[in-house]
Amino acid sequence: PHTFPALTLLNSLNRRGSFRIVFLIALPFCRWIKFEEKVEQGGERWSKPHVATLSLHSLFELRTCIEKGSIMLDMEATSLPQVVGNPSSGALIGIGIVLTGSPAMTHRNLTSTSLNDISDKPEKDQLKNKFMKKLPRDAEASNVLVGEVDFLDSPFIAFVRLQQAVMLGALTEVPVPTRFLFILLGPKGKAKSYHEIGRAIATLMSDEVFHDIAYKAKDWQDLIAGIDEFLDEVIVLPPGEWDPAIRIEPPKSLPSSDKRKNMYSGGENLQMNGDTPHDGGHGGGGHGDCEELQRTGRFCGGLIKDIKRKAPFFASDFYDALNIQALSAILFIYLATVTNAITFGGLLGDATENMQGVLESFLGTAVTGAIFCLFAGQPLTILSSTGPVLVFERLLFNFSKDNDFDYLEFRLWIGLWSAFQCLILVATDASFLVKYFTRFTEEGFSSLISFIFIYDAFKKMIKLADYYPINSEFKVDYITRYSCACEPLDLCGCVAPQVQRLSTYNTTIDWSSLTKKECLKYGGHLVGNNCGYVPDITLMSFILFFGTYTCSMALKKFKTSRYFPTTARKLISDFAIILSILIFCGIDALVGVDTPKLIVPSEFKPTSPERGWFIPPFGGNPWWVYLAAAIPALLVTILIFMDQQITAVIVNRKEHKLKKGAGYHLDLFWVAILMIICSFMGLPWYVAATVISIAHIDSLKMETETSAPGEQPKFLGVREQRVTGVIVFILTGVSVFMAPILKFIPMPVLYGVFLYMGVASLNGVQFMDRLKLLLMPLKHQPDFIYLRHVPLRRVHLFTFLQVVCLALLWILKSTVAAIIFPVMILALVAVRKAMDYLFSQHDLSFLDDVIPEKDKKKKEDEKKKKKKKGSLDSDNEDVRNFPAFF
Amino acid sequence: PHTFPALTLLNSLNRRGSFRIVFLIALPFCRWIKFEEKVEQGGERWSKPHVATLSLHSLFELRTCIEKGSIMLDMEATSLPQVVGNPSSGALIGIGIVLTGSPAMTHRNLTSTSLNDISDKPEKDQLKNKFMKKLPRDAEASNVLVGEVDFLDSPFIAFVRLQQAVMLGALTEVPVPTRFLFILLGPKGKAKSYHEIGRAIATLMSDEVFHDIAYKAKDWQDLIAGIDEFLDEVIVLPPGEWDPAIRIEPPKSLPSSDKRKNMYSGGENLQMNGDTPHDGGHGGGGHGDCEELQRTGRFCGGLIKDIKRKAPFFASDFYDALNIQALSAILFIYLATVTNAITFGGLLGDATENMQGVLESFLGTAVTGAIFCLFAGQPLTILSSTGPVLVFERLLFNFSKDNDFDYLEFRLWIGLWSAFQCLILVATDASFLVKYFTRFTEEGFSSLISFIFIYDAFKKMIKLADYYPINSEFKVDYITRYSCACEPLDLCGCVAPQVQRLSTYNTTIDWSSLTKKECLKYGGHLVGNNCGYVPDITLMSFILFFGTYTCSMALKKFKTSRYFPTTARKLISDFAIILSILIFCGIDALVGVDTPKLIVPSEFKPTSPERGWFIPPFGGNPWWVYLAAAIPALLVTILIFMDQQITAVIVNRKEHKLKKGAGYHLDLFWVAILMIICSFMGLPWYVAATVISIAHIDSLKMETETSAPGEQPKFLGVREQRVTGVIVFILTGVSVFMAPILKFIPMPVLYGVFLYMGVASLNGVQFMDRLKLLLMPLKHQPDFIYLRHVPLRRVHLFTFLQVVCLALLWILKSTVAAIIFPVMILALVAVRKAMDYLFSQHDLSFLDDVIPEKDKKKKEDEKKKKKKKGSLDSDNEDVRNFPAFF
Repeated sequence: PHTFPALTLLNSLNRRGSFRIVFLIALPFCRWIKFEEKVEQGGERWSKPHVATLSLHSLFELRTCIEKGSIMLDMEATSLPQVVGNPSSGALIGIGIVLTGSPAMTHRNLTSTSLNDISDKPEKDQLKNKFMKKLPRDAEASNVLVGEVDFLDSPFIAFVRLQQAVMLGALTEVPVPTRFLFILLGPKGKAKSYHEIGRAIATLMSDEVFHDIAYKAKDWQDLIAGIDEFLDEVIVLPPGEWDPAIRIEPPKSLPSSDKRKNMYSGGENLQMNGDTPHDGGHGGGGHGDCEELQRTGRFCGGLIKDIKRKAPFFASDFYDALNIQALSAILFIYLATVTNAITFGGLLGDATENMQGVLESFLGTAVTGAIFCLFAGQPLTILSSTGPVLVFERLLFNFSKDNDFDYLEFRLWIGLWSAFQCLILVATDASFLVKYFTRFTEEGFSSLISFIFIYDAFKKMIKLADYYPINSEFKVDYITRYSCACEPLDLCGCVAPQVQRLSTYNTTIDWSSLTKKECLKYGGHLVGNNCGYVPDITLMSFILFFGTYTCSMALKKFKTSRYFPTTARKLISDFAIILSILIFCGIDALVGVDTPKLIVPSEFKPTSPERGWFIPPFGGNPWWVYLAAAIPALLVTILIFMDQQITAVIVNRKEHKLKKGAGYHLDLFWVAILMIICSFMGLPWYVAATVISIAHIDSLKMETETSAPGEQPKFLGVREQRVTGVIVFILTGVSVFMAPILKFIPMPVLYGVFLYMGVASLNGVQFMDRLKLLLMPLKHQPDFIYLRHVPLRRVHLFTFLQVVCLALLWILKSTVAAIIFPVMILALVAVRKAMDYLFSQHDLSFLDDVIPEKDKKKKEDEKKKKKKKGSLDSDNEDVRNFPAFF
Repeated sequence: PHTFPALTLLNSLNRRGSFRIVFLIALPFCRWIKFEEKVEQGGERWSKPHVATLSLHSLFELRTCIEKGSIMLDMEATSLPQVVGNPSSGALIGIGIVLTGSPAMTHRNLTSTSLNDISDKPEKDQLKNKFMKKLPRDAEASNVLVGEVDFLDSPFIAFVRLQQAVMLGALTEVPVPTRFLFILLGPKGKAKSYHEIGRAIATLMSDEVFHDIAYKAKDWQDLIAGIDEFLDEVIVLPPGEWDPAIRIEPPKSLPSSDKRKNMYSGGENLQMNGDTPHDGGHGGGGHGDCEELQRTGRFCGGLIKDIKRKAPFFASDFYDALNIQALSAILFIYLATVTNAITFGGLLGDATENMQGVLESFLGTAVTGAIFCLFAGQPLTILSSTGPVLVFERLLFNFSKDNDFDYLEFRLWIGLWSAFQCLILVATDASFLVKYFTRFTEEGFSSLISFIFIYDAFKKMIKLADYYPINSEFKVDYITRYSCACEPLDLCGCVAPQVQRLSTYNTTIDWSSLTKKECLKYGGHLVGNNCGYVPDITLMSFILFFGTYTCSMALKKFKTSRYFPTTARKLISDFAIILSILIFCGIDALVGVDTPKLIVPSEFKPTSPERGWFIPPFGGNPWWVYLAAAIPALLVTILIFMDQQITAVIVNRKEHKLKKGAGYHLDLFWVAILMIICSFMGLPWYVAATVISIAHIDSLKMETETSAPGEQPKFLGVREQRVTGVIVFILTGVSVFMAPILKFIPMPVLYGVFLYMGVASLNGVQFMDRLKLLLMPLKHQPDFIYLRHVPLRRVHLFTFLQVVCLALLWILKSTVAAIIFPVMILALVAVRKAMDYLFSQHDLSFLDDVIPEKDKKKKEDEKKKKKKKGSLDSDNEDVRNFPAFF
């Protein structure tokens, strides 16, 4: 099906002296940067990059070519005619070369030009080529020229390395100097075979190991040795199990070439078919060995180290935020925070008879959040009120009321004591205990919080449906029979004064014109079969709720779709949640149904008129209460410490590839300081919020822009900076002024966002993967590394135990005992510890991390093993016997 | 990381003398049926099947082993001890062999047993093994035993082929007789190397070509030649571009081994990296060469051939339906048909002032559908009324009314003439013209019909929303102000008689208790701001509409999910639409809102009292009308012919892999006969309905149950039978009695199903793929075969022209000109013909099919080319030079 041009031209680019080698072949046939791209002759374009599949035959033919051909290393030449002149000793001068820049030009430029026409200046087409962007600056080309000519009887073969890389004009697709040239010209009739040899040398030249050899080779034997090394490492697919016509997609990850290079010096055997456990195998979430959690043993040692670690990044914490992604993160997290503040403020208002209400919640969120993000060790953490704090406040308020204590003053003292205790924990580096939170604890906790998020989103929707009941008996035809009218209460003799009052009212009030609220206010009552029902709102709310969720999910996934250019896709994906919110606010406005909206307070004053913005520390309660407050404070301290630190652990996960380090001690220090401020101002207390923090991180993830065609984008890390957090909380603070805009956002849309956050934060959690395994038949289970090494029933047992733990915690959470919920994380740690007796350390190392002490022991064991192994593994040398088979 | 057992046991099963070879290696390490499965030592189970990646090194070592080892072909032995005794000449007798049945048993059975313990009876574990099902009956095993022992100084190698396959007890995982044995025992320290050699021979033994050689080999040279042939064909992946740790998923399709075998005899070159155009390249939908459309030139020749072709399948057309899938298809298509009949009947009733109405539509659908499915050439086709027929009826009715014709009688004569004309077309084999419907026409038409389906689904929903308007001004608080009351009309002096009538009414009627309908009936009017609105119904309808669609889509895709066993997944996927309908009927019932329901007629009598079930042919109109009817009949004939045949073409697409053949002439014959019946009974006329027919086929698709682990299920074809169709239409007929059940199905749910059908029928249509290409950046475009061979701008031009054609047709369809819509398909054929001048035949052969005449020419051209090629391609022989390189 293919016609080969008289002279096939292949060229590749490489770069010297660095691990990352980039290659490019161009023209009429293929190019390599890392993977092969063919010219689709019919399609007039480059194919998708794919793994170059070679035939063994062509590799051996190439080997013969190198043995027999003229190898000219470090030739001094500055132009193509000179190069061709040198090896050919005149026989080949004046050969026509097809000069084409890109596949689209193939037809246009199919006129042969003489070698002499090739200028050493880059041509226009070359300079315009966008492809140049994909190459590193010091890239050098290898040009492979193969073809059939009619004046030769035997093949002419030359492998040339130039002393200096030379610009060979339009030979290369882009203006890159050429360093290597491989020329194979032979008699007519074997074009296909020449072409395959050309592909083989191009593939070899794009191989990092061979390309190093080619740069250093002193004679042809070195090159042959390089080819043999390559052959020794090739991966062979049996013809009956693979169709050579399939273009293999570039793999997600490649073994580093260092490993391959070392293999030859070290002598580790080649592992075929994936027996090597990947790095991910031994727990990605272990903290045992991270520097931040080393116990210093000195007073405030950890805190000082935290400050020293984070200080150098302080400036970059601001300019690192200069990216459009930050804007998306700000809007998304702002809406989540505001919604949270309103929900929580409402609940708190109920619990404390408005001693703390929505406005306090707003103010507290804004002040603590902004300060924390500005100065804390891990500014990616988002502070928020949490469930246990709410439960504590409710209990405390009721206790104060029952005992006639001044609630706010009592609370102030508890806050002060607790802050003091937290500061002691900071000073003694107590945060090092965090390393006992293994993957088991951490994932259990974060999954549970995510489940609660999801559950709460649905609960809120069901509550809403209860508040706006649907009249399911409604029949279109009976519309005339539905009514709801306001009428004065029936006058019965029993309540004389009321009658009196009503009768005076009656003379002045037009009952039928009153609204529902007015009616009830004036003591009327609602009569009619339609009074209990509200049309449309519930159904519209559900549409908005599921719509926002589905739309967010779909847009977030849009990044991996095939449509639109990468930048557009990335933008849509980054702004997925904001876009969904806007779309469904639009739909809501379009339909016009009066769904419940986000209403923020628009006046700045304490919710309760009985209190001010400063809580005086003395005078409200007897003196001994100030001291006794230390006891409940202890509970608050544990609660704050556990809630804060486990979220910090989740935020600082290794998987997030954070580069600026964590600051557990510094974080806790600020939480304590903010607690003092909040206590004095009568604002709620704040700790790190798991789900919102994960959402914050997710919205700031960075990936590489792919360089070589076919290379997969890699997750680089998170935009670690303080700006998004600070702005989010400043916006929260000024939300009072944004009330006119915010009132267009329906609550169900925000509940949809909460559902999204809950589900998204379960992504990639190993515990969830293992839960899914329960539903999967064996043969469909993904190739998780732990499934290769741990029997399935052990995996299921582990999952089962985790489910039981979470179920118990869930039940606990639903009762008043919720107050000791964070303490229960300790119980999780204990359960995990007990598992050491149920599971082998081997199994646990795959399913979880190994708990620190054991870890050390294990490492020692490994060292011992290695020593032993060293003496036994000498048999691996047989790998090097390979050339003996030729 | 791995410890190798002292003796590694690998065994494989094969089957002699058939193309499909199945292999199995078992035990402590790997097994092959076709692809490799490893034992996950930690996981105690078989890994996923994957392509065996070998090292070149191990293959060359194996080659040396065969050269140096003892090769015993056709050994006569009946037990393992005897086998081992024969090649080893006593040195090896009594070696312990680890006997393990399956990976889970590895630990249990790790006790060594003497060779003598191996019985020749299948053991219990073996018989219980479900894996046996995956093997063909005459499978034979190859056992590979490699391991290190301490009493040997140099390796002991034996390759044994037994004279007769022998049961070697628990050596194999399943009770399969062993034919080949490869034993490699060597001194300690090289276990890994031995293991890789073992994998190499096992892979070779599972290769169809080598395995044939192994069966036929006369001496070791034959085996070496086999290895060399294998080596010559292996696919080599460069180490820098692929990670050997990745387990390669088995490919979707494999080159047949025949091709490989022929390669050696014929000498066609190996194509690396997918340059071979796949079979799919040259249009899957061409009909030019199919036997059904050959013109016979004899009177009724085509019809007779159709009957002869289909008659032998008549019995199987009934018992082939015995599958649970048929039940799903029946329910799904039944609901679609009933909905269609109701919608269409309603429109027809409007158009003809109830001369034909819903009941006529039901009766007609049932009678014609059942007869057609029972006797037609292609019983998978579903008959239905179509848009053009409706437009024609409307025009005809108005014309009759204006000219005082008897509509039904006039229509009867048109029907009779048209049927007569159709029968002439049948007798003259006119259906052969269908072959001019290329992919361009066919996909254009079916896409347009699908778009209309989707558009109609939305239009119906919007109509519904208009019918049940939402009160978007509703405020919860103002509930008291909404009302709608029935009041008598105001008495104004101007209409005295009315006043009179009303006043008499007034005395007897309690206006406030009347329903909306009654109120209007008695001449009252509705007063109040709530009369125009209907709560909840519209929103609920949209929830049901989108819900049903999304749910159907999701459940249909469930087949490819990882969860639940294959059978459960298949069942869910097969019943996707019925399940969705049930789920959303359930939700509707739960919410209880009075959404519009499917109401079928429950009484069997003509809609209009002015007509009966038989239309008398004479008496209503003047005599010349009977003759003049032939002229409008011509239009009806073209309309029926085009609509019927293009749908038949779509149904009979090659992609559907129908085995029982088509029957274009027979189909048209029955359409004509049914037209006569319908005309006499005053029922609507019926032709094949594109979208419902595609849905019918989709719901009856069959796939292979995978046999060898790792093999992809293949699309086998469609359950071609008459039962589903017949039952669907019988059910339609008796729907009158099912009204009490059907009334629970909300219409929006059915509209959702229509939306699903419209979208699903666009699946896999090349035109849609090309439309999507417009939105995709170059590098993300899928590897379609036509993109490799046709420049993108030509592809886009082709798509653009197609879009323009469809846009014009759409506009046409929206005007009264819709009546000539089917005739416009002829215009599409003409446009396609004109494209011959705009596009090269090469491009068209990839984007479309080649129109018959040209096709012949092309074939001739190809023949000429081949002749020329034959003389030139002798250079391909160089492939066989390969062994010279060793």
